[in-house]
Amino acid sequence: MVEGLLTILRDKKPLIHHITNMVTINDCANVTLAIGALPVMAHALEEVEEMAGAAQALVLNIGTLTKEQVDAMVKAGKAANSLGIPVILDPVGAGATSMRTQSAKRILEEVRVSVIKGNSAEISILAGKGGRIRGVESAGGVDDILSAARDMAKKYKTVVAVSGATDIITDGNRVAYVDNGHPMMGTITGTGCMLTSVVGSFCGANEDSFEATVAAFVSFGLAGELAASKDEVKGPGSFKMAFFDEIYNLTEEKIRKGMKARYE
Amino acid sequence: MVEGLLTILRDKKPLIHHITNMVTINDCANVTLAIGALPVMAHALEEVEEMAGAAQALVLNIGTLTKEQVDAMVKAGKAANSLGIPVILDPVGAGATSMRTQSAKRILEEVRVSVIKGNSAEISILAGKGGRIRGVESAGGVDDILSAARDMAKKYKTVVAVSGATDIITDGNRVAYVDNGHPMMGTITGTGCMLTSVVGSFCGANEDSFEATVAAFVSFGLAGELAASKDEVKGPGSFKMAFFDEIYNLTEEKIRKGMKARYE
Amino acid sequence: MVEGLLTILRDKKPLIHHITNMVTINDCANVTLAIGALPVMAHALEEVEEMAGAAQALVLNIGTLTKEQVDAMVKAGKAANSLGIPVILDPVGAGATSMRTQSAKRILEEVRVSVIKGNSAEISILAGKGGRIRGVESAGGVDDILSAARDMAKKYKTVVAVSGATDIITDGNRVAYVDNGHPMMGTITGTGCMLTSVVGSFCGANEDSFEATVAAFVSFGLAGELAASKDEVKGPGSFKMAFFDEIYNLTEEKIRKGMKARYE
Repeated sequence: MVEGLLTILRDKKPLIHHITNMVTINDCANVTLAIGALPVMAHALEEVEEMAGAAQALVLNIGTLTKEQVDAMVKAGKAANSLGIPVILDPVGAGATSMRTQSAKRILEEVRVSVIKGNSAEISILAGKGGRIRGVESAGGVDDILSAARDMAKKYKTVVAVSGATDIITDGNRVAYVDNGHPMMGTITGTGCMLTSVVGSFCGANEDSFEATVAAFVSFGLAGELAASKDEVKGPGSFKMAFFDEIYNLTEEKIRKGMKARYE
Repeated sequence: MVEGLLTILRDKKPLIHHITNMVTINDCANVTLAIGALPVMAHALEEVEEMAGAAQALVLNIGTLTKEQVDAMVKAGKAANSLGIPVILDPVGAGATSMRTQSAKRILEEVRVSVIKGNSAEISILAGKGGRIRGVESAGGVDDILSAARDMAKKYKTVVAVSGATDIITDGNRVAYVDNGHPMMGTITGTGCMLTSVVGSFCGANEDSFEATVAAFVSFGLAGELAASKDEVKGPGSFKMAFFDEIYNLTEEKIRKGMKARYE
Repeated sequence: MVEGLLTILRDKKPLIHHITNMVTINDCANVTLAIGALPVMAHALEEVEEMAGAAQALVLNIGTLTKEQVDAMVKAGKAANSLGIPVILDPVGAGATSMRTQSAKRILEEVRVSVIKGNSAEISILAGKGGRIRGVESAGGVDDILSAARDMAKKYKTVVAVSGATDIITDGNRVAYVDNGHPMMGTITGTGCMLTSVVGSFCGANEDSFEATVAAFVSFGLAGELAASKDEVKGPGSFKMAFFDEIYNLTEEKIRKGMKARYE
């Protein structure tokens, strides 16, 4: 059940350690604050274990990866694992270059990940089922994404969340579909990365990573809908501003009224 | 002719690979989306060739360069050259430090560049004609910038675009002057970098780099004028928001009515 | 006296060289422009001395530090010292990891710093008086911060500025308290970093670092109050936009009417 999870998040105000990309790092920090958690960004090999150890969740995003950064992700991930801190992976651009595919796979092999969040191409490629990607955007060629996600969830004992017009979230057994969201969200860069930060925020405050992830997708998509409906929104600039406002102003009641989630 | 180039850009939605600076990387991604192209940012030496090879244009911006990043730029640039993908160079701060001047020159020597876009000091300094720069902003001391730009265009077989109150664009033979733009654009950081991303977007969809660059300057400057004219714009914060909206909402008709370009 | 310092800043338009974090680097550049100075961001070891030598102030911020970046900070700091250019240090997250604590201390030992600006936990920890920090946010446990700040100011012959509900600024002898500011400033990331850039901007134009720092805190906090009072501000997105507008639109008269500073 998604109800109540936002309240718990805001009560606990979990610290979310990010090792993330340089494109959307500011947006990720701001969305983490707006949803009610506390962000910290740190990627130096010398400090990531200590920082991860002080956090309630660790978000790994390979959007502008380097060899050193992936090393830091693995190191931080192992520290989080040893302390039972959930790790969320966003394999941005997996399939676009072999470095990205291999780095995502390396993290999945070396770190116990609680949630993998990607678009359909990224998830399908990592599941070994093919798919096409342009830069960091899914370009189709994906066949039966639910089955790919479910297999992957079982293999890695993780939640797999696939963003799309209808989002699919599964832990291998349970499956949820989320229809919240708005096309305007695709007009700005980084909504995928921000969503991963929101997943991290919910997971940092709630034990059930599956339900936490569903709550994150519902909340994020609903805020997008609410922002897009504003009269003053006339393009991506004004949409982005309104979007942060709506995330900050989300309430349990808005979620109860606006959520579009179904469970299989 | 500038007419029709925006429509072609939006139909083709070219993928624009950026190796760019950390200050404006998010704005560059967002402006690329807003004009109608698809951005991807990737700078690891291990993946830049593969990413450039999947793109329709490569944008190189040395605004926060490091030795490793310049190596990645050269590597990506050579890959782009071998595939006929246009390369756009923004030599941010050339002249401010010898590292910047030398790095810009190294890229020009080792990579075939389709467009060099800079302010008058950067272009004049790279052309060996002197000029003064404060940080990354032109500070005068430039003599006969058209002649410097034309010589440079001929030497490197490239388009040279000089931003200023009146922009000058030349391929060594043809010369265009663009008067679109607004002083409010100077109140936010990164308009120069964003313009380079827009040049990349037009060049990724149109073969004639000279006309593509003129179209980019006209479109970008016009969007700035339209944004600055809004009642709700009261300073750089609201201007930036409106600016992204106006770039997204540009049409061929607005360009036809608002363009201020003359050809020599 | 704070009066007149903004006018001097805007007349001189000092160049402020930043070596700063990747989270807020764009906001720091924009706030520097908005207050009336000129930002430049450069961190490569090969160019920081030359860039610092061309600037009127150097801002060092360890928010996303690496070993190499701290080396660059020390190198730039020494160059600034030899030319009499003021250096401003923001020890972001000191106490959160030993790398951050030690790096801040290393800079303080090797570079003559004109202003140290931090939250109460960061300052108290660097003064050896304890304190708790969560990520990069003060989490209490601070005892008698004025005495810690004063001791530190004397030890390092510097101005120490402690941000909080009431800000405390001291050069070891003089003490000022600033009550300007608004809780909305805590809903966006990077207000601390931006304030440090504003301190750098005032210090780059005014010799008395103590008064320059007081003026920076007053100006920044007042702009936050003015922005928060706008009808159109409904959350962190719209607040951030309005905040940049208000910083840009600050005047001596607004400061005279709105300043809440007391001297001990």
